[in-house]
Amino acid sequence: MGQFLANELETLGAEVQQRPLGKQPGKEHLDLPPVIIARYGNDKSKRTILVYGHYDVQPALLEDGWATEPFKLTIDDKGRMYGRGSTDDKGPVLGWINAIEAHQKAGVDFPVNLLCCFEGMEEYGSEGLDDFIKAEAKQFFKDADAVCISDNYWLGTEKPCLTYGLRGCNYYSVEISGPGQDLHSGVFGGTAHEPMTDLMAVLGKLVDVNGKILIPGINEMVAPVTEDEKALYGPIAYTMDNLYESLGSTTGIFDDKERTLMARWRFPSLSIHGVEGAFSAPGAKTVIPAKVIGKFSIRTVPDMESPQVNEAVYKYVKDEFAKLGSKNKLDVYCQHDGKWWVASPKHWNFSAASKAVKEVYGVKPDMTREGGSIPVTLTFEEATGKNVLLLPMGSSTDAAHSINEKLDRRNYIEGTKLLGAYLHYVAEEPMVAA
Amino acid sequence: MGQFLANELETLGAEVQQRPLGKQPGKEHLDLPPVIIARYGNDKSKRTILVYGHYDVQPALLEDGWATEPFKLTIDDKGRMYGRGSTDDKGPVLGWINAIEAHQKAGVDFPVNLLCCFEGMEEYGSEGLDDFIKAEAKQFFKDADAVCISDNYWLGTEKPCLTYGLRGCNYYSVEISGPGQDLHSGVFGGTAHEPMTDLMAVLGKLVDVNGKILIPGINEMVAPVTEDEKALYGPIAYTMDNLYESLGSTTGIFDDKERTLMARWRFPSLSIHGVEGAFSAPGAKTVIPAKVIGKFSIRTVPDMESPQVNEAVYKYVKDEFAKLGSKNKLDVYCQHDGKWWVASPKHWNFSAASKAVKEVYGVKPDMTREGGSIPVTLTFEEATGKNVLLLPMGSSTDAAHSINEKLDRRNYIEGTKLLGAYLHYVAEEPMVAA
Repeated sequence: MGQFLANELETLGAEVQQRPLGKQPGKEHLDLPPVIIARYGNDKSKRTILVYGHYDVQPALLEDGWATEPFKLTIDDKGRMYGRGSTDDKGPVLGWINAIEAHQKAGVDFPVNLLCCFEGMEEYGSEGLDDFIKAEAKQFFKDADAVCISDNYWLGTEKPCLTYGLRGCNYYSVEISGPGQDLHSGVFGGTAHEPMTDLMAVLGKLVDVNGKILIPGINEMVAPVTEDEKALYGPIAYTMDNLYESLGSTTGIFDDKERTLMARWRFPSLSIHGVEGAFSAPGAKTVIPAKVIGKFSIRTVPDMESPQVNEAVYKYVKDEFAKLGSKNKLDVYCQHDGKWWVASPKHWNFSAASKAVKEVYGVKPDMTREGGSIPVTLTFEEATGKNVLLLPMGSSTDAAHSINEKLDRRNYIEGTKLLGAYLHYVAEEPMVAA
Repeated sequence: MGQFLANELETLGAEVQQRPLGKQPGKEHLDLPPVIIARYGNDKSKRTILVYGHYDVQPALLEDGWATEPFKLTIDDKGRMYGRGSTDDKGPVLGWINAIEAHQKAGVDFPVNLLCCFEGMEEYGSEGLDDFIKAEAKQFFKDADAVCISDNYWLGTEKPCLTYGLRGCNYYSVEISGPGQDLHSGVFGGTAHEPMTDLMAVLGKLVDVNGKILIPGINEMVAPVTEDEKALYGPIAYTMDNLYESLGSTTGIFDDKERTLMARWRFPSLSIHGVEGAFSAPGAKTVIPAKVIGKFSIRTVPDMESPQVNEAVYKYVKDEFAKLGSKNKLDVYCQHDGKWWVASPKHWNFSAASKAVKEVYGVKPDMTREGGSIPVTLTFEEATGKNVLLLPMGSSTDAAHSINEKLDRRNYIEGTKLLGAYLHYVAEEPMVAA
């Protein structure tokens, strides 16, 4: 796929490099797939836009339940193009190449200089990419005036969106240990402090049933909702039925769109994921686990800073454990953290994309955030210091990562027009500071 | 092993039957191993004692970490006889056979009629045995005046004990479900009621750090400690260091022997075993599990009755869940229950055993209970209506079910004398009602 991409770009006259990323950590007999970087155009009078995409895909087997051969593009009579990677992220990557080709065939001058960064390990944590981007920010990518990533999805199926924010994630382990080995609950039940009892007590005090985080100091770090921001929510094409459909139930916390979307995008949340070391199989086992590790994570938003979040979490968990008066031992630590990202949706990068949506789809795009994270977004912003725009091509029903992944023909064709139109409007935007 | 046992008993002149138990449930191509039943002596003027043991053992492989070949008896210079089944339960079963043989060789009249019930599926839940015992209680076992089981262990390593009680066990599942499928915590965190949040809140309210059950009505069902009973605890050879050694830590709840042993033997306890359906592997996964099942059990004691215990548990769990106000769905049910058992340690069956201990070991035995369950005990009591005595041969360090299982030569030889002496004292006990 990397070679294919490099060939396509070279055929179109781009300057292409296949850059090695070294060996795969932990699997040193394997080379990481190369990053394909390319420059198309070098006109100092034009803006330079850096685009990112990935040519690797999730695994897929017909036996997983696909209705069609996953690695053969199959188009049904409604124009749904089924195939692994159709929407995530081969379709959008091809969109950029099609945009170049279309300009050449139509004899239209390409409106910007285009820099490409297409990786091959996105579905495996983008191994090696962060360091590469940081190094190239002052080299190959140094002329970039803004960044555009097409690797996420519309909120629904009809209305395009521009995405200006992502939540971060701090992932915690709470480890409680006591006995030297697992115990028989008949022999020891009632005589020893049980790590699971202590853990349930601590995990039961982190968040209330309505998702309110009970750790003092966390909610106080959250940036207040501004009037400008509030105004973005009204027009968004989203209904409670959309939530219930995606949940597969009506167990939502809020009854209205605005509070639901804000809870997903711009407020923190705390989820308890599970317990390591306890009995987790079906059936019945009368064990007193000697050491249990509760796992939970906090989705973070502006202006939460990881060190302060960690400090508040550690203090609260330790205090609540101390209140129990158990002789067991507690340890609480952050397994990993990733920062939130929010861009200014008033930047010319977003204005250009908004005009392009209006031109191609005839509507004003929804301004959205996402509740999850796309770590490369923040890496590009921090490494280049430029505005980053998430400009999705696919829709919410595309089933990325699932069986029967698809991209609608409409999204692919109009989406390719959108990428081209975006570059034209970028060229027209007044030259002001970010 | 069954055939070997049958041969040994036949050689000694016993009337032996190998009784089939049908096919193994779920593995209908396999016959269950036969129960070996035997009668030795049929003198109406003598008491008849029914003894139980099992000839099957736990699995064992040298690769598990055994210091010696597990299925070859290996005796070290301290007289420790290593081998799978040495203490659990081949040693004690052989003890009964040796007792018969010793009487024959010494030309001493056997003091009682002996009925044997030796099974081959004890380590796999005694499949088929309950129905067999119930059926034979009025047939082959109908003459039994009392029952003796040698299949448990001394509390320590020096002092023999007689065991007169076992706790029961009610095992519960608390199932909470909401979303139609597992969710991504980035996308849904903060917008939906999370089953894990609800489950932690409920499990966190079952028992306090010191093992006190918080479910109203449970502790009220417990029979008060009598003065007679209290008097049994003082002489027991047990120290807090014994507890700490077996725990592998000093995380015991109580600081004294009496309260520790009472908490293990004659008060109920509640242990939380784990959660099914949540993330339980090492590492970090940002899942919101759609359906989680918390597992906990209550060890029961006199006078707790299973239906009343279940009712109290269901009501409390449902009430606590209702208080949360979650839109998720709760189900709570009992996976299985097994009743506690307590015999009268003043019965002639125990008096005889106590005199035998004094004769063989020169001490008065500890009167003990166990925190766990030996379900066949209650089955014999209920099926025959006779007193059941647990008369252990092995010591607390024998490592039944573990690697390097052993039986000390002293325990085997003196233990065999004990079984014989017990039968002689049984014959001398006055004929009074149970």
